[in-house]
Amino acid sequence: MSSTLRVLPLGGLGEIGKNMTVFEYEGRIVVVDTGLRFPTAEMLGIDLVLPDFSYLRDRAQDIEAIVITHGHEDHVGALPWVLRELGADAPVVYGGRLTIAMARSKLDEHKLRDAELEDVDPGEEIEAGPFTVELIHMTHSIPDSCAVALTTELGTVLVTGDYKFDQTPVDGPPADVSRLAELGRDDLLLLCGDSTNADRPGFSPSEREVGPHLEEVFARAEGRIIVTSFASNIHRVQQVIDAAAALGRKVSLVGRSMRKNVNIGRSLGHIEMPEGILIQPQEVEDWPDHKVIVISTGSQGEPLSALRRMAHNDHRAIKLRSGDTVVFSATPIPGNERAVGETVDRLYHIGCNVITPREAPIHASGHGYVEELKLMLNLVKPRYVLPVHGDYKRIQLHAQLADAVGIHPDDVFRGENGLPLEIDERGARFGEPEQSGMIFVDGVDIGDPADVALRDRRMLSADGIFIVVATVSEQDGDPVAPTEVIFRGVPFVEQADGLVEEIRLEVDRSLANAARDGIRQIDLLQQALHDDLAAFVYDRLRRRPMVLPVVVEV
Amino acid sequence: MSSTLRVLPLGGLGEIGKNMTVFEYEGRIVVVDTGLRFPTAEMLGIDLVLPDFSYLRDRAQDIEAIVITHGHEDHVGALPWVLRELGADAPVVYGGRLTIAMARSKLDEHKLRDAELEDVDPGEEIEAGPFTVELIHMTHSIPDSCAVALTTELGTVLVTGDYKFDQTPVDGPPADVSRLAELGRDDLLLLCGDSTNADRPGFSPSEREVGPHLEEVFARAEGRIIVTSFASNIHRVQQVIDAAAALGRKVSLVGRSMRKNVNIGRSLGHIEMPEGILIQPQEVEDWPDHKVIVISTGSQGEPLSALRRMAHNDHRAIKLRSGDTVVFSATPIPGNERAVGETVDRLYHIGCNVITPREAPIHASGHGYVEELKLMLNLVKPRYVLPVHGDYKRIQLHAQLADAVGIHPDDVFRGENGLPLEIDERGARFGEPEQSGMIFVDGVDIGDPADVALRDRRMLSADGIFIVVATVSEQDGDPVAPTEVIFRGVPFVEQADGLVEEIRLEVDRSLANAARDGIRQIDLLQQALHDDLAAFVYDRLRRRPMVLPVVVEV
Repeated sequence: MSSTLRVLPLGGLGEIGKNMTVFEYEGRIVVVDTGLRFPTAEMLGIDLVLPDFSYLRDRAQDIEAIVITHGHEDHVGALPWVLRELGADAPVVYGGRLTIAMARSKLDEHKLRDAELEDVDPGEEIEAGPFTVELIHMTHSIPDSCAVALTTELGTVLVTGDYKFDQTPVDGPPADVSRLAELGRDDLLLLCGDSTNADRPGFSPSEREVGPHLEEVFARAEGRIIVTSFASNIHRVQQVIDAAAALGRKVSLVGRSMRKNVNIGRSLGHIEMPEGILIQPQEVEDWPDHKVIVISTGSQGEPLSALRRMAHNDHRAIKLRSGDTVVFSATPIPGNERAVGETVDRLYHIGCNVITPREAPIHASGHGYVEELKLMLNLVKPRYVLPVHGDYKRIQLHAQLADAVGIHPDDVFRGENGLPLEIDERGARFGEPEQSGMIFVDGVDIGDPADVALRDRRMLSADGIFIVVATVSEQDGDPVAPTEVIFRGVPFVEQADGLVEEIRLEVDRSLANAARDGIRQIDLLQQALHDDLAAFVYDRLRRRPMVLPVVVEV
Repeated sequence: MSSTLRVLPLGGLGEIGKNMTVFEYEGRIVVVDTGLRFPTAEMLGIDLVLPDFSYLRDRAQDIEAIVITHGHEDHVGALPWVLRELGADAPVVYGGRLTIAMARSKLDEHKLRDAELEDVDPGEEIEAGPFTVELIHMTHSIPDSCAVALTTELGTVLVTGDYKFDQTPVDGPPADVSRLAELGRDDLLLLCGDSTNADRPGFSPSEREVGPHLEEVFARAEGRIIVTSFASNIHRVQQVIDAAAALGRKVSLVGRSMRKNVNIGRSLGHIEMPEGILIQPQEVEDWPDHKVIVISTGSQGEPLSALRRMAHNDHRAIKLRSGDTVVFSATPIPGNERAVGETVDRLYHIGCNVITPREAPIHASGHGYVEELKLMLNLVKPRYVLPVHGDYKRIQLHAQLADAVGIHPDDVFRGENGLPLEIDERGARFGEPEQSGMIFVDGVDIGDPADVALRDRRMLSADGIFIVVATVSEQDGDPVAPTEVIFRGVPFVEQADGLVEEIRLEVDRSLANAARDGIRQIDLLQQALHDDLAAFVYDRLRRRPMVLPVVVEV
């Protein structure tokens, strides 16, 4: 007589991002993915959003393993907070080689050097309490992406992770369809499948098709070229480097995560770079315009990214000018359209040529389209389906695909974060909801690793909150009224004589610096204020209260 | 010896929205359009954005006329503020019949009943100081849309307004190409042309093509149908009514601006409605599902719109349910993608079928595509071109089109708000910049006309500002810390004993109401708090200070 398998999604359902799913059998737990998402514009003063993982905290001693499918932030980004919270109970973290290398680099920044990380080859079997865990090689927009098969005596669950069926990947073999088919022959119990592109008909283009189009676009550019893409898209970066080499251009890497990921990629052999092609950002001006390609972060219009800074004439090394060509080798993640649009428009204002995937096929999604989702369903022939990684729309569309390939609608579960799917020998059904939701993280500029002090508002709210309201002139950015400072629950603030007055002065200083640098966008101003004040308050109090800057233009 | 013509755009360049252009000759002024735009998500507590029209305030006595090209908010929405500011110096406002009817209705709400408005037929000549003004019939997504020809002894300027060359409009004749060609033969001095779709190749589809596709989509729906579009898109509303009549469904209008615009459209003969087809929103539940079509505001995901309220289960009359079909007969304006996406996802969560222009051709843009912009350039053969109505990208693309049809790049001016183009017999060039920018408007729910108290932060800042910081639990929306209230520059607040404490109570009341109604989205919470507090403060102080609500979830 077997027990009940509980599948509890803590993130990634009804939203794009912060993927995290808890698998539980006979009281023991395996967690697949610990992702984060980025805040929307109205989440003022928030840097990151994590899944509410209170459930894991309460069950810390029952967790056998954490398995990460691949190295993207929406799958691994919450790991430092999870491990810190679990403390001595934290289990081993498993994943592919690059995944584990990227996780280790991230944990180092958070000074979590004691975490146990283990890289696993596809096909290896890991015993984790009542679970046997196996990684299966998949293709996606980052190397070493894997699906995860979790086997208990009740049967096997397949968590696809993010995937596409790329028949001609740039690096490594195609997805291991033979192993997937085997799972299908052996009566797969449940498929937890990626729904990201459930709204796109057909088959996704291969990553390999992007390279020649990039080279074409580059060949037509007469001046400097700036290419932006996801820093973790190692394949794309390789293809840009190849095109640069073919055209005799030097390559410069701009943006901290770009440099970091390329380093990791090189050390694991995923990136090959011709001798002498790399130059420093400060050297870009020393080369003729037609001899340089800059690869930059900022493809999503992120406020502090290198490209956004360049577009606002606020980047130390690279000053953009008329005649430069900026190539977006990425599409906006839903929700980022406005930030990307704003960046593009600033670039036009400078006089740059801007090339996006609308103008040329210079991007390929890492997520399979409709026909690939159907192929997956037909390969693994699951008894039950739980579409994951998608807002309600995409989950619904994925459910319709399962219906289309002949899976009975009663066996397809349209879930929600916090709603456990419970499976036993009699069938599958949703159980009672568990706590789930968002945790907001507020932090200073992660550009300086010494300053990494990202904070969790809920769990660490003991440090309190500062709210600073600055009123500036819409015409010239000068302060037009005294700064308001409110604080609540900040320890030691009473002992800190004159702190409020000092904060006011710090605000004035920060605004003056911003005005001098030509920073006028409210969101950039707020970000600058936030970073300056957070650093200042930490310096004075050795505490990290949340700092919420409100800039009012009049 | 003739003088200099100055063309000063105060809005609509480097942005989408708040179109306003000042034409000046021999010290006399004609203003074309007085538009507004809607705020972005980070403009917390802001309802509307107006162009900074300080320039007009300083030159009030020199203004001969205001001409409005058509009745959309981005062309007429700032009129109440402009007229109030100009006071006794306000000139006559001219426009087409529907345009003037809509302007009058808007001014009535603002209690500006003394404004002089005059409707003008295309071809009529208006003398306005040194200018002769003529309206030219165009086609766009609202009836009575016109281009404006402004003639001085230096020559004629054509301001296109928003337009497309619809060869088969739903209502009225096609654009008056013969008059445009005549202007071209007579040496047109300057074209100020709409750039909105300068990035879309080809010709825009005709509005008439939309009707049959809507009817097809409606015919496939088995339950209730909710259609959303711009309330001002009278032609689209007519086509929905026609399809409803053909399918034997009743029609209900939901959303205040929808009801208002349909009333105005009917009174001017632009909308014809079969006897007995209209039912009240409260009656919708009395009819079988397959007998009803609801036409609703909210196609842009606006926070307080009827559709957004329905999607959040917060609408008085209409409760959406599984089986309802929601049809978006509109595309998101750039910047609104996230709000629209969020609304769509809530609808999927309820279990509605959602049809957008991605699924079926149920929308046609009101703005001409690339080939239409080229047709305009070839018809009117301008000496100089100033692309307007567009962000820097679209202005640049429009300039490239002028180049493509053979206009010398030196004669095409890529302008900015506040940068005057000065033309005399020797040529054209940019002059010294004038003050321009944004004015933020903060106001209570305009749903109740008695409460129309939209306010201008800059000019009317004498009433001061309240900042209210509420801290609520992310789990259940309950307050978890005392509300902070800051105020600055609010007159009489010292005499209002205990006001701050009362505001705290009002915040608690407002949050409790919101929690009861299931409102959990931060932006909706902030909006609800704002409206309740603004009404409360007005009630106590008879003042309208700005109310800035900050909701912090922990």
